[in-house]
Amino acid sequence: MIKLKYRTGLKDMPSYDVVERDWDIKVNANESNMNLPPIIEDRLMARLASVAFNRYPNEQVELLAEQIADNFRLDKENILIANGSSEILEKLFFAFGGRGRKIVYPQPSFSMYKIYAKFSASIGVPVDLNDDYTFNASDFVNAVKENKASLAVICSPNNPTGTKIPMADIEYVAKSIDCALVIDEAYVEFDGESAMRFLKDYPHLMIARTFSKAYGLASARVGYLIADKKIIEMVGKACMPYHVNVLSAITADIVYQMRDEYIPRIQMTVAERKRMSEQLSKIDGITVYPSATNFILIKYDKAVALNEYLENIGIGVRSFGNAPRLENCLRISMGTRPENDAVYKAIKDFVESQN
Amino acid sequence: MIKLKYRTGLKDMPSYDVVERDWDIKVNANESNMNLPPIIEDRLMARLASVAFNRYPNEQVELLAEQIADNFRLDKENILIANGSSEILEKLFFAFGGRGRKIVYPQPSFSMYKIYAKFSASIGVPVDLNDDYTFNASDFVNAVKENKASLAVICSPNNPTGTKIPMADIEYVAKSIDCALVIDEAYVEFDGESAMRFLKDYPHLMIARTFSKAYGLASARVGYLIADKKIIEMVGKACMPYHVNVLSAITADIVYQMRDEYIPRIQMTVAERKRMSEQLSKIDGITVYPSATNFILIKYDKAVALNEYLENIGIGVRSFGNAPRLENCLRISMGTRPENDAVYKAIKDFVESQN
Repeated sequence: MIKLKYRTGLKDMPSYDVVERDWDIKVNANESNMNLPPIIEDRLMARLASVAFNRYPNEQVELLAEQIADNFRLDKENILIANGSSEILEKLFFAFGGRGRKIVYPQPSFSMYKIYAKFSASIGVPVDLNDDYTFNASDFVNAVKENKASLAVICSPNNPTGTKIPMADIEYVAKSIDCALVIDEAYVEFDGESAMRFLKDYPHLMIARTFSKAYGLASARVGYLIADKKIIEMVGKACMPYHVNVLSAITADIVYQMRDEYIPRIQMTVAERKRMSEQLSKIDGITVYPSATNFILIKYDKAVALNEYLENIGIGVRSFGNAPRLENCLRISMGTRPENDAVYKAIKDFVESQN
Repeated sequence: MIKLKYRTGLKDMPSYDVVERDWDIKVNANESNMNLPPIIEDRLMARLASVAFNRYPNEQVELLAEQIADNFRLDKENILIANGSSEILEKLFFAFGGRGRKIVYPQPSFSMYKIYAKFSASIGVPVDLNDDYTFNASDFVNAVKENKASLAVICSPNNPTGTKIPMADIEYVAKSIDCALVIDEAYVEFDGESAMRFLKDYPHLMIARTFSKAYGLASARVGYLIADKKIIEMVGKACMPYHVNVLSAITADIVYQMRDEYIPRIQMTVAERKRMSEQLSKIDGITVYPSATNFILIKYDKAVALNEYLENIGIGVRSFGNAPRLENCLRISMGTRPENDAVYKAIKDFVESQN
């Protein structure tokens, strides 16, 4: 058998753990638990019927970029569309990374950052959050400076902790460092306060957004980067031609046009997050972390057994194995109200059975 | 203004030239000039109506892989689905490339190979085709050996020349080299003869395919790699989680289920290619290269002026600027019969006006 010469390190590249089961209640991936609003579905089906399926993507992606730009009173050259904010981040790590370069991000945070760092041949530098998962801005700035980082990443509100990074901290970081700084705002719609306001004053600051969470479009894989035109041009060079397909682009385009339709859903999710946080925090032994997102992180000393119990009754939540600083933590996405009630009852039943 | 530290070489990365205009007749991108067959469109719309848009991709991509595997009597672990064969090739170059590594491919061939080589930090080694664009198997094998290549790429039938690489040559290359070898079969459906037969005997051989050409699905960006399970596992490691979206996966799934619907179209395209090749070759001063694809490459000493003339009357064909060995060449995709007639007439008119 011939021995093929795979890229150095490829064999040991970490994989993102995405094993799924057919859950009765799926609250493990921070998805929206509601499908397209019917009025949007109707419009989408009408538009799909007029797609030239045989043609490579062309103006559809540009139209979406223009629409997003208009909303922020920017130009379409300030917007880069990609396959989820995942691809945005992957390409940012590539564009600012490389051999010997360091990329700084908080820990715990989105688990893909360390994988993007490896794939871009860069050195990932995680900076610990405080014990209560709040952000330590001076630690972060020091790490960026000491490591002469080429890119700094802040996820706010932070996944998987739910923690919001205060705007003052983001501005402090932006003005204290001189490398590229991206704010991953995948969950910002559940909080409402965005770092967009800093774009004008800090041209090295970028904002990554997604359609996968508040806009319930995880299936389509669409995200975008908002930044200085020069940055968009350079990160765009790292993207392959036709990387965004037409079906996803027009779906996101229609959703964005009608994004007001999502306001009641977002409000409901926020209300459910508050209700669930209050209820869960009343259960003895469970710590609930403050969340500004569509999910809640809890800590419980028998989290492994609790997760197993939930799995057995068909409820999928997210556990983190032995990921640093997430021992005994479970992340629970907000589902519909009946789903949340069922999840709450299951957790309560389990905890009470242990006493 | 802060100076950001972009990846070394990013600024000078070549871009794929994809500037488009609103052509009356678009025969510049080797697309199918027919949209979905109505029966497939009906089925697709019904299936889209039941998609959980809010969920991340899950079993849809796997179902497509299983279906393709079944067709070739393979297992789904032999198939990798990606965003067009573009992403397949990009990830192959990444998985087998890296600093100091060499990747060998013919010249002229698909212009992205040299770009994938750069992005994977590898050294691209183009091997000249013969003067008539036929493949020189011993030159190719020698180049692979002399350069100790980690990956060899053959596009067959070859884009943009249309040339078919004889199966005997492919087998000769496969048995003569011991690095990874991918046959890019983007256009194979227009010829019918595939290197699939060699997979069993040469486990270092891989086949890349696409839905963008014969199956008229360029909009959706779906391609696949067929290979040894170990190769699929390793190249899969280079792909990001959820890189293929649900809408594209189910569209390709339905098209593949009903691929017999495409046989008449493929036959018509082949008949048109023959008809156009014959007609164009009768025009004085035009050289037509034999094609096994859905396009024809012609050479004409006033190709630049001809291209400009065609542009001015709304006909988009593909010219290659000063790409090596493609001077004075134009590539013409087969459109519908009336479109082809119009293209032929325009070319004939121009050439006659020059005499």
